[in-house]
Formats: sequence, structure tokens, C-alpha cells
Amino acid sequence: MKHIHELLGYENIKIIQDDDMFSFSIDALLLASFIEVTSKVKNIMDLCTGNGPIPLYLSLKTNAKIVGVEIQKDIAEMAISSVKLNGLEDRIEIVNDDLKDIYKKGYANMFDIVSVNPPYFKYLDNSHTNKNDYLTIARHEVKATFMDIVNAANKLLFDGGRLYFIQRVSRMQEILATLDEYNFSCNKMLFVYPKISDKEALLVLVEAKKNRKSECKVLKPLYIYNKDNSYTKEVLDIFNYKKA
Amino acid sequence: MKHIHELLGYENIKIIQDDDMFSFSIDALLLASFIEVTSKVKNIMDLCTGNGPIPLYLSLKTNAKIVGVEIQKDIAEMAISSVKLNGLEDRIEIVNDDLKDIYKKGYANMFDIVSVNPPYFKYLDNSHTNKNDYLTIARHEVKATFMDIVNAANKLLFDGGRLYFIQRVSRMQEILATLDEYNFSCNKMLFVYPKISDKEALLVLVEAKKNRKSECKVLKPLYIYNKDNSYTKEVLDIFNYKKA
Repeated sequence: MKHIHELLGYENIKIIQDDDMFSFSIDALLLASFIEVTSKVKNIMDLCTGNGPIPLYLSLKTNAKIVGVEIQKDIAEMAISSVKLNGLEDRIEIVNDDLKDIYKKGYANMFDIVSVNPPYFKYLDNSHTNKNDYLTIARHEVKATFMDIVNAANKLLFDGGRLYFIQRVSRMQEILATLDEYNFSCNKMLFVYPKISDKEALLVLVEAKKNRKSECKVLKPLYIYNKDNSYTKEVLDIFNYKKA
Repeated sequence: MKHIHELLGYENIKIIQDDDMFSFSIDALLLASFIEVTSKVKNIMDLCTGNGPIPLYLSLKTNAKIVGVEIQKDIAEMAISSVKLNGLEDRIEIVNDDLKDIYKKGYANMFDIVSVNPPYFKYLDNSHTNKNDYLTIARHEVKATFMDIVNAANKLLFDGGRLYFIQRVSRMQEILATLDEYNFSCNKMLFVYPKISDKEALLVLVEAKKNRKSECKVLKPLYIYNKDNSYTKEVLDIFNYKKA
């Protein structure tokens, strides 16, 4: 069911959700918060943008032009409506297209930053999933694999431009091999543990640079929930981001 | 100056140190503690064994046969003396040899576990280091690179055997690329932060399996010092390991 969700404490930014179709998860906000934007950043592209949580959040952190790309028409339309609802049409453009082709449409080698909260799971023919289902496409690599995404980012970024993404820790070795293959250096990693008492990290946030060599940094870990299931202070600070 | 050091709380294990030549660091103990040994483990090889802290520590955790390999003769002799001092000659053998050749001496494809606390720093001809200095060889890749070590482990382990090592986080991407190249799967990682207040991890402990595919796990981070520079409880537990 479609409804309007306030992006928590953010300065009154609203986002249209539909739980049957697509609703953004906390992962998108962790990624948006992880992205470093300086005043030099002019152009950002968000792939797999869904209903647009990353462009909307980033609009608080930067005045750069942001393009969100979403392959599913109905979901892209939700994102477009949210952009209008917030009066951000001059800064955020939502494009309903396939991320694999998008560089051909005047977008090659021009972005400072490409961000993506991609599908986490490999799509196997025998997966118990419906190939055309909205949620399946958002969660499984039906339309694009992780390699497709890094390949696309490689075509969209200029040299030294930064790719930001979130992925499952279980795919770490494949992630770094793919970055190697496309000559990205893994610059920063931040591991996310659902609970402060968890023995293993679930997700990793990554910053990688196109055609650069750099040493990797692993930042302080991020915990989402306290032992009592309340959000940690770090996560509440992400929810309540205030424009500087 | 040579002196006998008690391996802290360990059940009276003693180790001969010489601060001018080689003294083991806490890193060796973190690695020895990270290594999982079950009763099935029969043969362990420790490369770059130095004065033998890892074989000595492991002798508390397992009855397996442990071979330590050290290229520097004087340091290997310190390790041999320590093994005798502890009466462990029947379980620990120290070999003064080059790790790159050791598999040819009857050791190929026979180990359950290979461990290594390797030199951390690349050796550059213009490094301000003395190529023959004991400490330079222990810290810089004068005699063996990280790739040499993974190559050696590949020849020493049987299929499914585990390689354990510690390295600088800054080399993460190279580490995983090298594991990929030799068909090791990165199984477990544990990031080490010197202080609980540090913003970045310094070291990473890795468990990798030869000729296996597996998902990667990132464990809870390990902090060495509390804010007041005392050791954390986790590290004191490593120092005070008691035989089960």
C-alpha cells in the first residue's frame, strides 16, 4: 500500500513508499551517510535508486546535480513523485532505464561519485522467486549483477571518481576481485553489525576509486541496534542528519 | 641483549628473547590465539617463526606436530633453545631454511594448517634499512614477499587445509587478490584496532582455505588497549590462555 513516509528527522524530507512494491531500507541511509561530498563534487549518479532515498538524503549534504537510475517503471515513478513532493526537481533527476546502458546517453566519464545499494543475492534459476516480482528484482541479481554495476560505474566516473556501495560481507572476496578487475582501488571499508552483541558483520560499506592505487582503510565498525533493540546513537545521528 | 621472557600467564612457557635481534610481538600471540585447532589437526607449519612464539603458544592448544621455519640462523637457534627449555622437542621442530624451498624437503601437501606472522612492509631498494640486519629481515620483505608466502602455503597444505596470517589492513586488496590467484577462499577476517578509540584498524587476521569456495565472515573487532593504555580483557585472555 502506497503511503508517504517522513525520512525520520531529516529536515522534513518526505518519501513515497509502497510496501508491496518497494520500500527503502536502513541500508540506503547508511550508504547515503557514508558518502563523502565536498563542495567540488558537481555530479552524482545513484544506480538502483528504487524510490529515491539516496538522492533525497544526499540533497541535504550537497548542492550537486544528482541523477537516480531505476529500471522498474512503477518504482521510478514513485521516486519522481517524491522528488516533486520535496520541490527538488532542479537538483534531482530520476531516469527509468537500465544501468548497463545509461552511460551511452550522454553520461560517460562525467561523474564525481556513483553510489549504489544493489541487489544483494545472486539469482539462481531455481531460486524460489518470481523473476518479474518488484521485490525479487530489488533483492536478487535478476537485471544486473555486481560485476555489471562495477562495469557501469567504470564507464560513468571520471578517473579518480569514487564508487560507493553496500554489500553483504559474505561476498567480500568477490567484491574485491571485481574492483581489481576494473582497476578500482578499495579506499575505505566500514563493517556493519546488526546488533552490538553480534559475532559477525552482515554488511560492508565500500568507497573505491577509479584508476587509482591507494591503501585501504577499515573504519570503526557500525552497530545498528543496542542490546535492547533500540537504535544506537550512531544510527540515530544518521536518521537525524541536519544540513550543515 | 638475550634474556628469558615468560610468555605472560601461559602455563609457565618460557621464550628466549634478544631485543637487538628479534623479540616476538603481541601480533604473534593474536595470530596464535586466532588459529582454530581441533583434535583432527595432526600437522602444523609456522613460517617466519622467529624465536618461536607461535609454535610455543600452539603447543598449549594442540598435541599436533608443529614445524617452525626460520631463515635466519641465529634466530632459529634461539627458537631451538626455547623449545628445549620447555621440554617440547617431541612436538616442536625448528628448521633453519628458506620458506620458498621447504616444501621440497618432504613437506609437500601434508599440513592441516600453515600459520605465518610475515614481514609487513615492502622492501624498496631505497628503504632506509640494512638489508642484512636481523630486524629488517623480520619486518621488510627482503627474503620473501606476501606472494611467496601464499605460494609456499599452497604447496604445503592439503586441499581444504587452512592458512592463517596477520597483515597490515592497508594491504587488504593485495591480500585478497593474492589469495584469489592461488585459489584460497578467504574464510574469516578479524580486524585489530590498537586502541578502543582508534578510528581505523591497523591489522587484520585472516583464515583462508586451500582450493575451497566459501563465504567470508568478518568477526567482532579486537581492540588491544583501553583508553587508559591498559590491555583490554580480550587481550589479557589471550595472554593468560590456559590449556583446556
